[in-house]
Amino acid sequence: MPRIAYLGPQGTFTEQATRALTADFAAELIAHDTVHSALDAVRLGDVEAAGVPMENSVEGAVAATLDGLVGGAPLVAVAELVLPIRFDVLLRPEVDPLHATSVASHPHALAQVRGWLSERLPRALDVPTASTATAAAEVANGTADAAVVAPVATRYHPELTRLASEVADVDDAVTRFLLVRRPGLLPDPTGADRTSIAVVAHDEVGALGEVLSELSLRGINLSRIESRPTKDRLGAYRFFLDFDGHVADTRIGDALTGLHRRCFEVRFLGSFPKADSKPVNVRAADSEQAFRRSMSWLDEVRAGRIA
Amino acid sequence: MPRIAYLGPQGTFTEQATRALTADFAAELIAHDTVHSALDAVRLGDVEAAGVPMENSVEGAVAATLDGLVGGAPLVAVAELVLPIRFDVLLRPEVDPLHATSVASHPHALAQVRGWLSERLPRALDVPTASTATAAAEVANGTADAAVVAPVATRYHPELTRLASEVADVDDAVTRFLLVRRPGLLPDPTGADRTSIAVVAHDEVGALGEVLSELSLRGINLSRIESRPTKDRLGAYRFFLDFDGHVADTRIGDALTGLHRRCFEVRFLGSFPKADSKPVNVRAADSEQAFRRSMSWLDEVRAGRIA
Repeated sequence: MPRIAYLGPQGTFTEQATRALTADFAAELIAHDTVHSALDAVRLGDVEAAGVPMENSVEGAVAATLDGLVGGAPLVAVAELVLPIRFDVLLRPEVDPLHATSVASHPHALAQVRGWLSERLPRALDVPTASTATAAAEVANGTADAAVVAPVATRYHPELTRLASEVADVDDAVTRFLLVRRPGLLPDPTGADRTSIAVVAHDEVGALGEVLSELSLRGINLSRIESRPTKDRLGAYRFFLDFDGHVADTRIGDALTGLHRRCFEVRFLGSFPKADSKPVNVRAADSEQAFRRSMSWLDEVRAGRIA
Repeated sequence: MPRIAYLGPQGTFTEQATRALTADFAAELIAHDTVHSALDAVRLGDVEAAGVPMENSVEGAVAATLDGLVGGAPLVAVAELVLPIRFDVLLRPEVDPLHATSVASHPHALAQVRGWLSERLPRALDVPTASTATAAAEVANGTADAAVVAPVATRYHPELTRLASEVADVDDAVTRFLLVRRPGLLPDPTGADRTSIAVVAHDEVGALGEVLSELSLRGINLSRIESRPTKDRLGAYRFFLDFDGHVADTRIGDALTGLHRRCFEVRFLGSFPKADSKPVNVRAADSEQAFRRSMSWLDEVRAGRIA
């Protein structure tokens, strides 16, 4: 059975996401304390892959994942999952919600259910914890009356009362997770794929503009750009780019070779089916057929047969 | 002996340029009345090639040549020549220059030696002619006392006195000529080449900008851009682009396939050694080696061997 690492502890949204990302096969999930540790377990071959959080629609990018992906031997993402962030609320069975005096969770989680808590657990004071999973444990051991947790946490605490499910003040908060592996056979193109790369441009006027033009000129839709310091020196940045398309697509390959020529560093971070499965829109000028025709035309021109 | 057409009549700068452009081989030169007629003689196979004027540093583009190159079956330029425009002045042998009463030439030629004429032929009035060659004929038949002509004209009128050579008020007036052929084996790359194309962009916002970006992104130096109406409808233009490099160069081919995909029409008008022989400057990111390395890298990434 393949071993899959994930950012622990047990019972968090990352475990839940990693279970969903590996739902197609039987896997042994292994919690790691940090993203760094989970990714290194992949690099060392201790596990086949790792489930890590990439970005949250409220909190933004997960810096530890961005830095971890490029801080060592190559890794590629082979799948993504977008998980709606809706919480379960667990309660000590003997406590009446209206009289609960404390509610534990990760501060981000507490912030995302503030409205709900003020109505349903009106007397409970916040008990901030390192993770939603820790909060569940605090209720189980009697330190807190209630906990705001990921739905997966309930499997570890069947003794606690589930007061509510699908709790979220804002309906559309989501987190995007990746399943990351060592380089190997890539997922097949589906027509609804995303490609992730990280580039370090040369320190020249207009360098980032040229990077983006390599994409836009080929009609490639950039869905995300994040910058992180390279840590070499102040003012040097690595850009994480996500765009529509698969590295097997000619227009994507063409853009990537352009970036490879002009950038100080290009790291391929994977091509995988988009979580939303929405087919990628390709302009006529950037279709496989247009590329084939333009190459045939150039061959004929170079051979002196047409002009 | 190959037959070569040129824009006549005999004895003009175009004959002189065409002689220089065909100096490597014995050729029979055949004057044509118009650029159109000379180019059609090539298209029909009546001649091997044609010598035509492309642009003048004072007068600008030669519209008849631009329109003629794209108005029919494909033609490609295989050589260019930049000719300094300096005139000979021919005189009837029996006339004293100070008493010459008329000086014949093409109006552009008369304008380019105005200062010289006022000093050396102070009493001569202008006699405008259709070409500098016609002016020489008018002196030969006694209609005018003097003529401002292309140096080559003197070979047709040995009976006339050559009053002066290398006459030009402005020293650096030049005309660029092309030797044009049907498509066939292209001149070999020399490292100091020019490529000419004509493109019709789609009628979309930013279309010309994208065309120019295909060149600039690959570090391709655009040396000239001219627009001519396509004659289909008002506001539709064809752009004539000259840039440094040979179609056999990978960066040039890469840019051309990009243009072919995005443009309504691309015509290749030739790759040939630049008249100035100045080596083309190629950025490291656009070198043959950089292209090769980027393609190898992409192949490895697609095969899942590196990331």
